[in-house]
Amino acid sequence: MADMNGKVDVVLVKPQLLPSTLSEQIELTWEGIVGEKHYGLTMQANSAQKPHPKGTEIRNVRQVAIMSVEEMEQIAKNMDLPEVKGEWVGANIVVSGVPDLTQLPPGTRFYFEGGASVVVEGANAPCTTAGGSLQEQYPDKPGITSGFPKQAIGKRGLVGWVERPGVIKQGESVMVRPGPEVRS
Amino acid sequence: MADMNGKVDVVLVKPQLLPSTLSEQIELTWEGIVGEKHYGLTMQANSAQKPHPKGTEIRNVRQVAIMSVEEMEQIAKNMDLPEVKGEWVGANIVVSGVPDLTQLPPGTRFYFEGGASVVVEGANAPCTTAGGSLQEQYPDKPGITSGFPKQAIGKRGLVGWVERPGVIKQGESVMVRPGPEVRS
Repeated sequence: MADMNGKVDVVLVKPQLLPSTLSEQIELTWEGIVGEKHYGLTMQANSAQKPHPKGTEIRNVRQVAIMSVEEMEQIAKNMDLPEVKGEWVGANIVVSGVPDLTQLPPGTRFYFEGGASVVVEGANAPCTTAGGSLQEQYPDKPGITSGFPKQAIGKRGLVGWVERPGVIKQGESVMVRPGPEVRS
Repeated sequence: MADMNGKVDVVLVKPQLLPSTLSEQIELTWEGIVGEKHYGLTMQANSAQKPHPKGTEIRNVRQVAIMSVEEMEQIAKNMDLPEVKGEWVGANIVVSGVPDLTQLPPGTRFYFEGGASVVVEGANAPCTTAGGSLQEQYPDKPGITSGFPKQAIGKRGLVGWVERPGVIKQGESVMVRPGPEVRS
């Protein structure tokens, strides 16, 4: 797959689990995003990291959550909502111009204009926690909490870790180099 | 792709670039293999890490080199050599029972019996440095140095980084969980 060029629409930090807070820029270190709840070189394994026993200290592969403007528009359309914002579903970086972002394979690199880079661990699984946060925005429309995991699947973005520290600013460009395709 | 179960044939450390030294066990920390030349949380980018400028400090994604008994036998056959040993071409872990090891995608996990785990960054590129080390073993058979990069392509094993520290012992079992396949 060829390299792609996109744009950083917004950057966000989430000091708690949700929501994220819009920022003019975010600072990436080896530990992740400064001020972020998921900051750290290591993390505790949960059920998604089986067969590691729950609570095992492993390398933090979920330092950064990347989503796309276009996929969030598709989620909103699927759910018949006016819009879905990155801050409501815990994004750290929202990009535009990268088609089918969530389908990019592990090992894909995001090279940001300012020098920072992020390596993709994998797709982020849409959950009812993010669904509940979205539900709070639309209290008159029931069913969002449980509907989000189904309607956002394949469009909920990627998680990854910092390969090169740096500052990422709103509006900067990003070059995306897809990981190698699997030869079968 | 389904999980696979293999066995650790030998473990090795390379204090210098080449060769590796056989060991009864190796110790993996967040920095890689204790005593290894490539030990460190970070590394300097070289031409393989473009577009990072050469010398840029990035996360060390090449802490561990994994090869397979079966693929080394294929390389030896391709090159009409009696054998190719892991220590001659810089392996740290040589496993058996994992078909087409070098074809495993980035994000593949190796879960070792003793608890350590390694995440695959990608295939290791066969080079004339390893070819030269192999040539030294067969001084009467010219052409190995330059032949190795061609004959070992797709069979030279994988590089990766430590997800969970621990000790890996010769003879222990390993569960290999392939990374997700690319949906096109």
